[in-house]
Amino acid sequence: MSRPHPNSHLIGDLQARSALATPALILDLPVLEANLSTGMRLVKDAGKAFRPHFKAHKSLDIARRQLELGATGICVATLSEAEAACELGAELLLTSIISTDAQCKRIAALAASGATIIAVVDHPDVALRLESVLQGTCGALDVLIDLDMRRARSGCATPKAAAELGNLVSASPTLRLRGVQAYAGQLSHMTSCKERSAAHAEFTSRLAAFKFALSHILPDDPIVSGGSTGSMNLDLSGPLTELQCGSYALMDVEYLNVEPGWTAWPFKPALRVQSSVLSTHWDAHAITDAGDKWFADKYGAAPRIVLGAPETAVFEPISDEHARLVTEAKLHPGDRIECLPPHCDPTINLFAAYHVFAGEQLRDIWPIEARGL
Amino acid sequence: MSRPHPNSHLIGDLQARSALATPALILDLPVLEANLSTGMRLVKDAGKAFRPHFKAHKSLDIARRQLELGATGICVATLSEAEAACELGAELLLTSIISTDAQCKRIAALAASGATIIAVVDHPDVALRLESVLQGTCGALDVLIDLDMRRARSGCATPKAAAELGNLVSASPTLRLRGVQAYAGQLSHMTSCKERSAAHAEFTSRLAAFKFALSHILPDDPIVSGGSTGSMNLDLSGPLTELQCGSYALMDVEYLNVEPGWTAWPFKPALRVQSSVLSTHWDAHAITDAGDKWFADKYGAAPRIVLGAPETAVFEPISDEHARLVTEAKLHPGDRIECLPPHCDPTINLFAAYHVFAGEQLRDIWPIEARGL
Repeated sequence: MSRPHPNSHLIGDLQARSALATPALILDLPVLEANLSTGMRLVKDAGKAFRPHFKAHKSLDIARRQLELGATGICVATLSEAEAACELGAELLLTSIISTDAQCKRIAALAASGATIIAVVDHPDVALRLESVLQGTCGALDVLIDLDMRRARSGCATPKAAAELGNLVSASPTLRLRGVQAYAGQLSHMTSCKERSAAHAEFTSRLAAFKFALSHILPDDPIVSGGSTGSMNLDLSGPLTELQCGSYALMDVEYLNVEPGWTAWPFKPALRVQSSVLSTHWDAHAITDAGDKWFADKYGAAPRIVLGAPETAVFEPISDEHARLVTEAKLHPGDRIECLPPHCDPTINLFAAYHVFAGEQLRDIWPIEARGL
Repeated sequence: MSRPHPNSHLIGDLQARSALATPALILDLPVLEANLSTGMRLVKDAGKAFRPHFKAHKSLDIARRQLELGATGICVATLSEAEAACELGAELLLTSIISTDAQCKRIAALAASGATIIAVVDHPDVALRLESVLQGTCGALDVLIDLDMRRARSGCATPKAAAELGNLVSASPTLRLRGVQAYAGQLSHMTSCKERSAAHAEFTSRLAAFKFALSHILPDDPIVSGGSTGSMNLDLSGPLTELQCGSYALMDVEYLNVEPGWTAWPFKPALRVQSSVLSTHWDAHAITDAGDKWFADKYGAAPRIVLGAPETAVFEPISDEHARLVTEAKLHPGDRIECLPPHCDPTINLFAAYHVFAGEQLRDIWPIEARGL
């Protein structure tokens, strides 16, 4: 675990790109920086707050750049991500529900250590459990009421349930109600813009009903947090007060396959997996070293080849350490192939580090601090 | 990366099982030890050598137990695994083809640092590249000729190609021919024993043709390495001199779904993923915190529930951090669910550590040293 990365000696090398130990996750620094600036400008121009999601990149280096550009805070999806991100000194929003004593204690310990953290709750039992853990620490905790925006994944399912939970939170000596979370992640990968717009309109009216039921207890200027890269164009003029987008920083094939809400995506793919051709004994395919241990997908997209093989070639991970590159082009052992990954968040979770490139130069290797524990 | 595991404080705790921060990868120590002993006894009784595969468990703690039981050496699938495993002091066999200069230099550096390592080669260009890198280090390297046993993934495709490569290796001042690798991984998950037996018979005759073509250059007592847990019953009496099985130590749903070659599997599942129920607002399902970031499959099997919910319940990871537990049983936030993972090797790659349990007691937390870099 503490071994140096096998490519560390290449940092600064002007020709490092073709000398890497593979498989290697490559981050194009100029593209990343353009995506970060564009995202921040779009959200600021819309008069919203931006709390980008750490779960996409899991990197303190990227989160610091987002904060420097003016992010309000950072979203995290897990307690491990929160523990990694607390050194940023930013206000963290843990967007996933917690439930067990162990989880309540971890969030209380983080808050007690000085981290500014907001939790989301969707059940009275958990609110009481949090309260009971917090009483031992003499601390208080900011919370949002999580609302089910038709995902059936977390959140109060009805305005009535939300109001009951809200009353409980409002009366609590240790929980401070800051607003609501209204995440409609099912919109993010709807391919058709028209379908996404219709679903967003339904989301907007559903959220209004929840806010009405909670209006007597919500603070002035409540946080209404949600959104994703896929619905960003709609959320810029929608009812959310702050956006949680994460993938915009990096992009991936699955987002490129979705109709952008703009005439073209304002974000470019910044992430590639570089692999090496290993074996070439067959007429119609070669084998590379980036198997399915190095790619994650969710909607079934394939890695998209962008370097080293014809556009018509198909890249198919076939076992943990091997992929089949279907092409009649003659390749040689040692040739380099680069692909855009299907889905950025879980693919990044498979790697320990980003190889940060500007052109052929390896500028740095950034650890992926919040890879799953 | 260097943060302590959130469950470290529970080591030694007699009731740790229901107090864990989840999702947690659980290793049942008595089951693991029984599997390791049974596997070693079966292979020894068959008069074969056993070189268990590190790629399955990626753990020095487990590899040390395998060596103590009499393993000849250890197989590794990647150079990173080799770099992690070299501190075992065992003879390592890198079972994957290498091709680039960077890969050749890494293996040369390992050999130069005192590790005993065997590489596999399937292409004259790579043999020459290895030779050229080794000449700079004054070292020599043991190699096996890799044979394509109808997987079209690596290996010389014909006896003629194998003989030509064998001649080149035999004439090399820096490569030492030790034998062949004949890996027929396509057999491992053939559900039907009858189909597997027929494929194994074809494998046996194909291997004989390769060995005949190489007979003039193979050393006395050549290594003939291959096999997997799925074909172990057949390999015990087949032409391999040493077996590479890995999954036998841990087992998984995908192997349990295969007809064992014995009247029953001699290996029991030692691995579970523990998750917590997060949200319970729906009649027909609950949500847990072990999403698809924590499960990998290859043949489409689902996680199998073994604790916390009825046998009829279905566990479906639906997003990175969330799974849907389809059941009409009434569950509560904080309830614990344990599942057998679909496929052991890539699931283990998703975690940083094993939680080593005997019953309810957390005996230790073992790092997963060779998680992908």
